[in-house]
Amino acid sequence: MRVLVRPKAGILDPQGQAVERALPALGFGGVSQVHVGRLIELEVEDPAQLPAMCEKLLVNPLIEDYEIVS
Amino acid sequence: MRVLVRPKAGILDPQGQAVERALPALGFGGVSQVHVGRLIELEVEDPAQLPAMCEKLLVNPLIEDYEIVS
Repeated sequence: MRVLVRPKAGILDPQGQAVERALPALGFGGVSQVHVGRLIELEVEDPAQLPAMCEKLLVNPLIEDYEIVS
Repeated sequence: MRVLVRPKAGILDPQGQAVERALPALGFGGVSQVHVGRLIELEVEDPAQLPAMCEKLLVNPLIEDYEIVS
Protein backbone atom coordinates (compact mmCIF):
# COMPACT_ATOMS: atom_id res chain seq x y z
CA MET A 1 0.00 0.00 0.00
CA ARG A 2 1.02 3.58 -0.53
CA VAL A 3 0.20 6.66 1.47
CA LEU A 4 0.63 9.98 -0.35
CA VAL A 5 1.08 12.91 2.02
CA ARG A 6 0.97 16.49 0.81
CA PRO A 7 0.86 19.93 2.40
CA LYS A 8 -2.71 21.17 2.85
CA ALA A 9 -3.83 23.92 0.48
CA GLY A 10 -2.76 27.24 1.95
CA ILE A 11 0.06 25.77 4.02
CA LEU A 12 3.52 27.03 3.12
CA ASP A 13 5.40 24.58 0.90
CA PRO A 14 8.98 25.84 0.72
CA GLN A 15 10.29 22.73 -1.03
CA GLY A 16 7.66 23.10 -3.74
CA GLN A 17 8.50 26.77 -4.15
CA ALA A 18 12.21 26.00 -4.40
CA VAL A 19 11.60 23.41 -7.13
CA GLU A 20 9.24 25.72 -9.00
CA ARG A 21 11.93 28.44 -9.07
CA ALA A 22 14.82 26.13 -9.86
CA LEU A 23 13.31 24.37 -12.88
CA PRO A 24 13.16 27.43 -15.18
CA ALA A 25 16.73 28.28 -14.20
CA LEU A 26 17.72 24.82 -15.47
CA GLY A 27 15.92 25.36 -18.78
CA PHE A 28 12.65 23.61 -17.95
CA GLY A 29 9.72 25.90 -18.69
CA GLY A 30 5.97 25.44 -18.40
CA VAL A 31 6.00 24.09 -14.87
CA SER A 32 3.52 25.23 -12.24
CA GLN A 33 1.69 24.10 -9.12
CA VAL A 34 4.67 22.25 -7.69
CA HIS A 35 4.10 20.60 -4.34
CA VAL A 36 6.47 18.35 -2.47
CA GLY A 37 5.18 15.85 0.03
CA ARG A 38 5.98 12.37 1.31
CA LEU A 39 5.48 8.89 -0.06
CA ILE A 40 5.11 6.08 2.45
CA GLU A 41 5.07 2.52 1.11
CA LEU A 42 4.29 -0.36 3.42
CA GLU A 43 2.91 -3.87 3.64
CA VAL A 44 -0.04 -4.05 6.04
CA GLU A 45 -1.89 -7.22 7.02
CA ASP A 46 -5.06 -5.23 7.78
CA PRO A 47 -5.43 -2.21 5.46
CA ALA A 48 -8.44 -1.06 7.50
CA GLN A 49 -5.91 0.09 10.09
CA LEU A 50 -4.23 2.50 7.68
CA PRO A 51 -6.33 5.60 8.34
CA ALA A 52 -5.66 5.28 12.08
CA MET A 53 -1.94 4.79 11.41
CA CYS A 54 -1.95 7.93 9.31
CA GLU A 55 -3.72 9.99 11.91
CA LYS A 56 -1.60 8.74 14.82
CA LEU A 57 1.87 8.62 13.29
CA LEU A 58 2.36 9.06 9.57
CA VAL A 59 0.62 12.37 8.91
CA ASN A 60 0.35 15.67 10.74
CA PRO A 61 -3.36 16.37 10.17
CA LEU A 62 -2.96 20.03 11.10
CA ILE A 63 -0.86 20.78 8.06
CA GLU A 64 -1.04 17.70 5.80
CA ASP A 65 -3.62 15.79 3.78
CA TYR A 66 -3.19 12.15 2.89
CA GLU A 67 -4.46 9.70 0.33
CA ILE A 68 -4.26 5.92 0.58
CA VAL A 69 -3.54 4.11 -2.68
CA SER A 70 -3.34 0.34 -3.03
CA MET B 1 1.64 14.67 -12.84
CA ARG B 2 3.18 12.89 -9.88
CA VAL B 3 6.71 11.75 -9.32
CA LEU B 4 7.20 9.08 -6.65
CA VAL B 5 10.72 9.00 -5.27
CA ARG B 6 11.94 6.21 -3.04
CA PRO B 7 15.27 5.05 -1.60
CA LYS B 8 16.94 2.47 -3.82
CA ALA B 9 16.90 -1.11 -2.55
CA GLY B 10 19.86 -1.57 -0.24
CA ILE B 11 20.16 2.12 0.62
CA LEU B 12 19.62 2.95 4.29
CA ASP B 13 16.09 4.23 4.96
CA PRO B 14 16.12 5.54 8.53
CA GLN B 15 12.67 7.14 8.26
CA GLY B 16 11.19 3.83 7.10
CA GLN B 17 12.91 1.98 9.93
CA ALA B 18 11.64 4.50 12.48
CA VAL B 19 8.06 4.10 11.26
CA GLU B 20 8.35 0.31 11.20
CA ARG B 21 9.47 0.31 14.84
CA ALA B 22 7.01 2.92 16.03
CA LEU B 23 3.82 1.36 14.63
CA PRO B 24 3.87 -1.80 16.82
CA ALA B 25 4.55 0.39 19.85
CA LEU B 26 1.32 2.26 19.03
CA GLY B 27 -0.65 -0.98 18.79
CA PHE B 28 -0.51 -1.46 15.02
CA GLY B 29 0.77 -4.93 14.19
CA GLY B 30 1.35 -6.75 10.92
CA VAL B 31 3.30 -3.96 9.26
CA SER B 32 6.46 -4.61 7.26
CA GLN B 33 8.53 -3.32 4.37
CA VAL B 34 8.07 0.33 5.31
CA HIS B 35 9.82 2.81 3.05
CA VAL B 36 9.57 6.57 3.19
CA GLY B 37 10.26 8.65 0.11
CA ARG B 38 9.05 11.83 -1.54
CA LEU B 39 5.98 12.76 -3.52
CA ILE B 40 6.33 15.56 -6.06
CA GLU B 41 3.18 16.83 -7.72
CA LEU B 42 3.40 19.33 -10.55
CA GLU B 43 1.70 20.64 -13.65
CA VAL B 44 3.96 20.34 -16.71
CA GLU B 45 3.15 21.59 -20.20
CA ASP B 46 5.46 19.00 -21.77
CA PRO B 47 5.50 15.73 -19.76
CA ALA B 48 8.28 14.42 -22.01
CA GLN B 49 10.61 16.72 -20.05
CA LEU B 50 9.85 15.00 -16.77
CA PRO B 51 12.58 12.32 -16.84
CA ALA B 52 15.20 15.01 -17.47
CA MET B 53 13.77 17.14 -14.64
CA CYS B 54 14.00 14.15 -12.33
CA GLU B 55 17.56 13.37 -13.26
CA LYS B 56 18.75 16.96 -13.04
CA LEU B 57 16.90 18.25 -9.98
CA LEU B 58 14.16 16.20 -8.39
CA VAL B 59 15.90 12.90 -7.73
CA ASN B 60 19.36 11.86 -6.58
CA PRO B 61 19.93 8.93 -8.94
CA LEU B 62 22.78 7.58 -6.81
CA ILE B 63 20.48 6.71 -3.95
CA GLU B 64 16.92 7.10 -5.21
CA ASP B 65 14.62 5.52 -7.79
CA TYR B 66 11.66 7.37 -9.27
CA GLU B 67 8.40 6.58 -10.98
CA ILE B 68 6.32 9.03 -13.02
CA VAL B 69 2.55 8.66 -12.60
CA SER B 70 -0.01 10.74 -14.47
